[in-house]
Amino acid sequence: MDSAPPPAHPGTAADAGLLSPVRAGTPAEAATSDAAWLQAMLDAEAALVRAQASLGNVPADAAEAITALARADRLDLREIAVLSRGAANPVVAVVRSFTALVADEAPHAADYVHRGSTSQDIFDTASMLVAGRTLDLLTADLDAIAASLRTLAGEHTRTLMAGRTLALHAVPTTFGLKAAGWLAAVGDAADRLRRLRAEGLFLQLGGAAGTLAGYVEYERLHRETRHESLAEGYAARLTERFAAETGLRAPVLPWHSHRAPVAALAAELSLTAGVLGKIAVDVQSLARTETAEVAEPAAAGRGVSSAMPQKRNPALATLIRSAALQVPAYAGVLAQAMLSEDERSAGAWHAEWQPLRECLRLTGGAAHTARELVAGLEVFAGRMRRNLDLTGGLIVTERLAAVLAPALGKAAAKEVMSRAARTAAASGRPLAEVLADEGAVAERFDAQDLARLLDPAGYTGAAEELTAHALRRYAKRPPEAGP
Amino acid sequence: MDSAPPPAHPGTAADAGLLSPVRAGTPAEAATSDAAWLQAMLDAEAALVRAQASLGNVPADAAEAITALARADRLDLREIAVLSRGAANPVVAVVRSFTALVADEAPHAADYVHRGSTSQDIFDTASMLVAGRTLDLLTADLDAIAASLRTLAGEHTRTLMAGRTLALHAVPTTFGLKAAGWLAAVGDAADRLRRLRAEGLFLQLGGAAGTLAGYVEYERLHRETRHESLAEGYAARLTERFAAETGLRAPVLPWHSHRAPVAALAAELSLTAGVLGKIAVDVQSLARTETAEVAEPAAAGRGVSSAMPQKRNPALATLIRSAALQVPAYAGVLAQAMLSEDERSAGAWHAEWQPLRECLRLTGGAAHTARELVAGLEVFAGRMRRNLDLTGGLIVTERLAAVLAPALGKAAAKEVMSRAARTAAASGRPLAEVLADEGAVAERFDAQDLARLLDPAGYTGAAEELTAHALRRYAKRPPEAGP
Amino acid sequence: MDSAPPPAHPGTAADAGLLSPVRAGTPAEAATSDAAWLQAMLDAEAALVRAQASLGNVPADAAEAITALARADRLDLREIAVLSRGAANPVVAVVRSFTALVADEAPHAADYVHRGSTSQDIFDTASMLVAGRTLDLLTADLDAIAASLRTLAGEHTRTLMAGRTLALHAVPTTFGLKAAGWLAAVGDAADRLRRLRAEGLFLQLGGAAGTLAGYVEYERLHRETRHESLAEGYAARLTERFAAETGLRAPVLPWHSHRAPVAALAAELSLTAGVLGKIAVDVQSLARTETAEVAEPAAAGRGVSSAMPQKRNPALATLIRSAALQVPAYAGVLAQAMLSEDERSAGAWHAEWQPLRECLRLTGGAAHTARELVAGLEVFAGRMRRNLDLTGGLIVTERLAAVLAPALGKAAAKEVMSRAARTAAASGRPLAEVLADEGAVAERFDAQDLARLLDPAGYTGAAEELTAHALRRYAKRPPEAGP
Amino acid sequence: MDSAPPPAHPGTAADAGLLSPVRAGTPAEAATSDAAWLQAMLDAEAALVRAQASLGNVPADAAEAITALARADRLDLREIAVLSRGAANPVVAVVRSFTALVADEAPHAADYVHRGSTSQDIFDTASMLVAGRTLDLLTADLDAIAASLRTLAGEHTRTLMAGRTLALHAVPTTFGLKAAGWLAAVGDAADRLRRLRAEGLFLQLGGAAGTLAGYVEYERLHRETRHESLAEGYAARLTERFAAETGLRAPVLPWHSHRAPVAALAAELSLTAGVLGKIAVDVQSLARTETAEVAEPAAAGRGVSSAMPQKRNPALATLIRSAALQVPAYAGVLAQAMLSEDERSAGAWHAEWQPLRECLRLTGGAAHTARELVAGLEVFAGRMRRNLDLTGGLIVTERLAAVLAPALGKAAAKEVMSRAARTAAASGRPLAEVLADEGAVAERFDAQDLARLLDPAGYTGAAEELTAHALRRYAKRPPEAGP
Repeated sequence: MDSAPPPAHPGTAADAGLLSPVRAGTPAEAATSDAAWLQAMLDAEAALVRAQASLGNVPADAAEAITALARADRLDLREIAVLSRGAANPVVAVVRSFTALVADEAPHAADYVHRGSTSQDIFDTASMLVAGRTLDLLTADLDAIAASLRTLAGEHTRTLMAGRTLALHAVPTTFGLKAAGWLAAVGDAADRLRRLRAEGLFLQLGGAAGTLAGYVEYERLHRETRHESLAEGYAARLTERFAAETGLRAPVLPWHSHRAPVAALAAELSLTAGVLGKIAVDVQSLARTETAEVAEPAAAGRGVSSAMPQKRNPALATLIRSAALQVPAYAGVLAQAMLSEDERSAGAWHAEWQPLRECLRLTGGAAHTARELVAGLEVFAGRMRRNLDLTGGLIVTERLAAVLAPALGKAAAKEVMSRAARTAAASGRPLAEVLADEGAVAERFDAQDLARLLDPAGYTGAAEELTAHALRRYAKRPPEAGP
Repeated sequence: MDSAPPPAHPGTAADAGLLSPVRAGTPAEAATSDAAWLQAMLDAEAALVRAQASLGNVPADAAEAITALARADRLDLREIAVLSRGAANPVVAVVRSFTALVADEAPHAADYVHRGSTSQDIFDTASMLVAGRTLDLLTADLDAIAASLRTLAGEHTRTLMAGRTLALHAVPTTFGLKAAGWLAAVGDAADRLRRLRAEGLFLQLGGAAGTLAGYVEYERLHRETRHESLAEGYAARLTERFAAETGLRAPVLPWHSHRAPVAALAAELSLTAGVLGKIAVDVQSLARTETAEVAEPAAAGRGVSSAMPQKRNPALATLIRSAALQVPAYAGVLAQAMLSEDERSAGAWHAEWQPLRECLRLTGGAAHTARELVAGLEVFAGRMRRNLDLTGGLIVTERLAAVLAPALGKAAAKEVMSRAARTAAASGRPLAEVLADEGAVAERFDAQDLARLLDPAGYTGAAEELTAHALRRYAKRPPEAGP
Repeated sequence: MDSAPPPAHPGTAADAGLLSPVRAGTPAEAATSDAAWLQAMLDAEAALVRAQASLGNVPADAAEAITALARADRLDLREIAVLSRGAANPVVAVVRSFTALVADEAPHAADYVHRGSTSQDIFDTASMLVAGRTLDLLTADLDAIAASLRTLAGEHTRTLMAGRTLALHAVPTTFGLKAAGWLAAVGDAADRLRRLRAEGLFLQLGGAAGTLAGYVEYERLHRETRHESLAEGYAARLTERFAAETGLRAPVLPWHSHRAPVAALAAELSLTAGVLGKIAVDVQSLARTETAEVAEPAAAGRGVSSAMPQKRNPALATLIRSAALQVPAYAGVLAQAMLSEDERSAGAWHAEWQPLRECLRLTGGAAHTARELVAGLEVFAGRMRRNLDLTGGLIVTERLAAVLAPALGKAAAKEVMSRAARTAAASGRPLAEVLADEGAVAERFDAQDLARLLDPAGYTGAAEELTAHALRRYAKRPPEAGP
Repeated sequence: MDSAPPPAHPGTAADAGLLSPVRAGTPAEAATSDAAWLQAMLDAEAALVRAQASLGNVPADAAEAITALARADRLDLREIAVLSRGAANPVVAVVRSFTALVADEAPHAADYVHRGSTSQDIFDTASMLVAGRTLDLLTADLDAIAASLRTLAGEHTRTLMAGRTLALHAVPTTFGLKAAGWLAAVGDAADRLRRLRAEGLFLQLGGAAGTLAGYVEYERLHRETRHESLAEGYAARLTERFAAETGLRAPVLPWHSHRAPVAALAAELSLTAGVLGKIAVDVQSLARTETAEVAEPAAAGRGVSSAMPQKRNPALATLIRSAALQVPAYAGVLAQAMLSEDERSAGAWHAEWQPLRECLRLTGGAAHTARELVAGLEVFAGRMRRNLDLTGGLIVTERLAAVLAPALGKAAAKEVMSRAARTAAASGRPLAEVLADEGAVAERFDAQDLARLLDPAGYTGAAEELTAHALRRYAKRPPEAGP
């Protein structure tokens, strides 16, 4: 039995992307890295002290000094991570390290670091900063995807293909409508994320147990030294200033143990991942060797197999699907973590952090990957047309049943067509031929009629109207509407 | 080894609520029952034929007859359920049974049942009708909960209690602020659900593969008999009429395999369940024998134990929590099901139905239960005050550290207080006494100062301001703002 | 906006199978119905009193009377379900109803119902009885599936088909090996479930808080009336007798709040569902219109579309997949519910019941469905062979690279073959022709060699050996090996 | 709105543990790091070539050279991670980098790297090697936990405490029995993991599509050069040799798309995490300020709050619970990924990797943390005794009801006790006093009897017997029974 010890040189990288290629090296990975999160915590600390300074109880130069020193590269990330076990969260170790740095380089400012604050104010605010930065990357990628899809939908408005349900040819559709469907889903996802970005990212500011008592006490003491008494509304003013400094929204109340904001963020990301995953499974379905109606964009090293020289695997779609299969589970952890007892949970809050990061970076990585996929997707219209004919007309059986219904009644018409379809499938004869043998059909339609009725191009319903409708609705967003 | 056969008399009730008391007998259970779903499918069929009639290609009297017959109690629910295995969805069996009924009682109308349609148009529309009806019940319960919470927050604005984090006393807070926190969470959930109700419940209308080809074909044939040609925009017009008949929103495109609407609905329900679950775990935390700060409303038969006569279990909170532990998982199935290949998935769609029902009825049941819980919650202010004193002043250590910070420096002040806290905890002496022995403290504060500083009532920060703020923000919704 | 009230006639059936056709009407649905669960609770009550009687402190005729009356059809299931809200679990209402029945019909026995017991002893024991009965059905279906798969694997040992990875043809394989893979997975699942059935289904017996105090007290009182003192080991003896009466295993300790047994059961069911789901997605992949290598067994009403007369949907695979997509989520709820505080959780236990039922009936329903699927699966060997040739030899590129490697080096060989594959794919020329133009190939192999090397039948590796190996390993289980 | 770019210096560490303190710096983190996984892939490559060499078709010195060079620190981990996007898995990039290294330093061996192989053979084998190494760490921690729990259970066999159900005092129990319950759960988990370690970790060896065609072809070519023909059973022999080299078990068939082995591993880890999480929520429940029956072991920097000097947070339990809340969700992804189409899924396999790592390192981290928790857990027997008396005797109401039952009948006895309990609770009078006023009681028992019956120490049922039973069953594992 293998019992080798773990390698002696794990380095500091528990995770450099090796097990998650969908986000390895993407901007979303960088935006959600430990370094990025540490930076966001320092950004939150600096914003907090600036907010206090702007209300007078911290000297302006202390706030400036703290802001200038609030750089993640000045601290030892790994050491902080390991020390985080002591308090069960990283902020205590961050504050200690950062205070030591400030004490060294700007001693007059050290007492103002994290003053009146609590770990959760800093961590939650940092998470929302990270989320905002990642959402900007994500919506930009979704916009680019939408642009490519508009092009595909426009170019292929009349590209006939088989509509498929439950794995089988159903009735004809167009590739334009398929692309329009993807477009609508992506456009809606981008709209929802923009709304969330604007309305749903909240700062956290509550102090030790959500009363802001520490912040208020320092203000009281400050007033006391000036023989003033505490003015009404300090909590509201501090919250507004913190909002201004962080660019995040002020909540009605601190939300230390009311976790809808993070659960809603994760839920939205899981919808976006699902939208992208839907595109991926469609591409895989169409790329199968027997179907071969689309191919992923070719690129050096892309889709390479370690064994088979001939393969050009749908690697991008595979990566996207791998993300979409994971994100809902991580979002579920965030939803579960809403069961957060007391003024701060002993564990539920702590369970949120890593799954939230996964939601952000997997969805961000998937969008980045999908952008490349749809930008270069190869569409083989000829093959689509040939596949449409594979069943010898069976794909428009529904139409024939409708056409016969007024004369035969709907049920009898469907029965005639079912019989004809079975015969055609079993015998391999074209449906037109089989139908010509059906008395009820033959007495109403001649061969030319039948040929017309059996032409898939004549039975695309409202595909073109729908595609045009979607293209209007999801037209290019004017620049000024951007985030 | 037990090998008895399953009972021979299972009746037709796979589920009459026995394993899910949180919703057994609640309105949400009735609104989401199989009978309700069947009724909604018939409502969808009737609305569809009325929509077609309003555009001229179905006789008005056929639509009327179909509407009149569209009653779930006219069909055999269990038979339909069992037959559903054949097509992997219930609509085929519903259409067959319902068409037979119409053929019996209004033969002229039978051909218009489900004309041009597809299973998914009916089922998805029915699901959204069921969702809308359940959401109405749910938001009404949330409004009632909010009303009770406003009362609690108002009455207890100054009721002192211990704020607790990571299971331990942290700093003082008020029960008013705790109730305000619940109120804000419930108010936000209700707002989000109202927005979803108004904007997010979509009809489904796509025909066999999303092109509306069947519907369009019948219109074309209708026009043909009148020597007219098919006019532009029939799909849009039919969709709008169907929207008017169902009260649901018209989507930009059919969403047969773009499942964000159901996934978003489930996600929203999971947030609501989480909000209710948070109240439940708080109530349980405060109701513990040693804490005893709240009790559930007493009622005959409530909270009874099968063994222990003395117990009055927090049964309502237990039910709510049982729902909140489940809903996120079911919502996750819906999010996963977005990976829906082709124009209709062979399985992903079918995996949605039961978990969607669970999301609706568990959240609805939890809200109904929570309404009763908060309406009668007993709050023991005296016990809260006594518990606050349990630590002999340690609960305001943070304040003392702040007060000492200007003189000693923040770090030294915290160190003094840590030492004093340890001494007090170890010796059991009151903190005031221990502090009087600390030189740094004694030289600045006399016994009276210390008593004042150590009074929990003086260290509630902005609790009162925050409570008032939330009460203003979540004030009673005026009747006209309802859905 | 639609605001119709929920239907006034929901009947008692919250769920008669309408939303879950995969189990509607199956034996697993009956075995896990509310009626079955109620019966199992009564079975547990009766077994408990028989166990006590066998140790002397309950009169034998009381135990007999209670056993005789312990029939679910004597109680009002729906009333019990609704009353269950009071105690947050159904047992209190069951005990009250059942005691009233016994008091009516066998008054002398009434005091012995549920004597010394607690809700959880009865409910958990009942759940395990239900699980055992359902597992028997499930393993029987798995055995039948395995038998069909042995036949398929045996018959198609040499049926060539394309092996597919990442949606594309990879290298040749056989349908026999594919069936053998399914067989191995099903065989392992059945073995694991049998082990669980034999070793993992535990009775529950702990009394109010896991000390068996109530049971012991009644024994003490019994002894007291006989002027005896309580003997050592009563708890162990009672547990053993209860095990004998229920056919369940005696645990080392009561497991009221140690939930590994149910979580492990659910996890095992989720693996089984996954094994069946894998078969389903394979069938769907092979049944696609363009591939058409298999078809589901035909049956009246099977795979019918409400719109398209020509379709024969893979309805069985769709049902199976719909179950497999759900079960892991429900199993996850059970795993989460292990976080069960104190001697009995206020909510975590209660969250288990419905998801446990879903795990049982969905997996049971899926197995029942899969049994039908594999028993009648149509396999089109001719089409498999034709599809294998679709790529003009590219499917054995790996082989050619291996053959060239000794001469050219592995990297150069792979490069030659990649180039040839690209040329063949782009030009549509057969690979043999393209290779003949490659100097490095031509100088080593003539046309006949190439034809031989490019014949897919020559490159199935160990497929036949592996198939035979699996057939031996998963040979028909002799009757005596059963549980 | 904040729109700062992500930090320019993310370094290579997407994750150095900052968001997951439960495993930051633990051996399990190192054993599952990217470096460890890369090492395991190289170990798999080396073992594969040694296996081939042992069968004669690879020169022994090539196998030696490859083995010697198979060191993760010779490759650029981050570069490989980023390049992994091309093939959607890391093995292609690993093989390229590693082959280049071998070509540089042992040119004669380069052609034997990854010969005949496929990405999944290497990756899955590597995952199982990583799993085995982590399981060894995990079971060692579980054994240490069990040892501490044996001590606790033994020392506190007679330490009385309140048994609590649904948040309230129920009946008396002992801390010894509570510790024994934890012990049994941990002992069972360790047993299950040992069985999995011994029986459930499989190598992967299937070649491109599960037929081992590449491996067989190289053997055939080798034989061909020696004018021998391919012997029967090469696949089986190679598999056995690979098993010997890796210490993993040989599966019946390749399991590229039959994923029960990884899903079962994850499920088992999720049970273990649940067992540990149960201990954590119990500790938190008992550590609450009002209860204060246990405290976590004190240590410098442990349980520190960033705001409140007096707190000693249950940080270890918090960390453990944070892990236990996550693992089931990740295990669920693995179960979902069993729906793996074809001979290798385009996405499902790829979704497994990161969640599998999380299952391993979170459970491993939780065990490491729990080991420290239980080794130093402080138990306050005096406080337990005082809390037991909090309800003035109500905690033994069940007993009194039993004692009165023979005389009054069970129902009447329970009613008497319910009434007395309500009176006692409402009035604050001791239950003994209230009972003395109940005629039915007073006529049977005098004050001394009542005092005896109301003594919690007399109503612990079989607690001592059960504790002893568990201590015997989970006695120290003799050294030779280890893995």
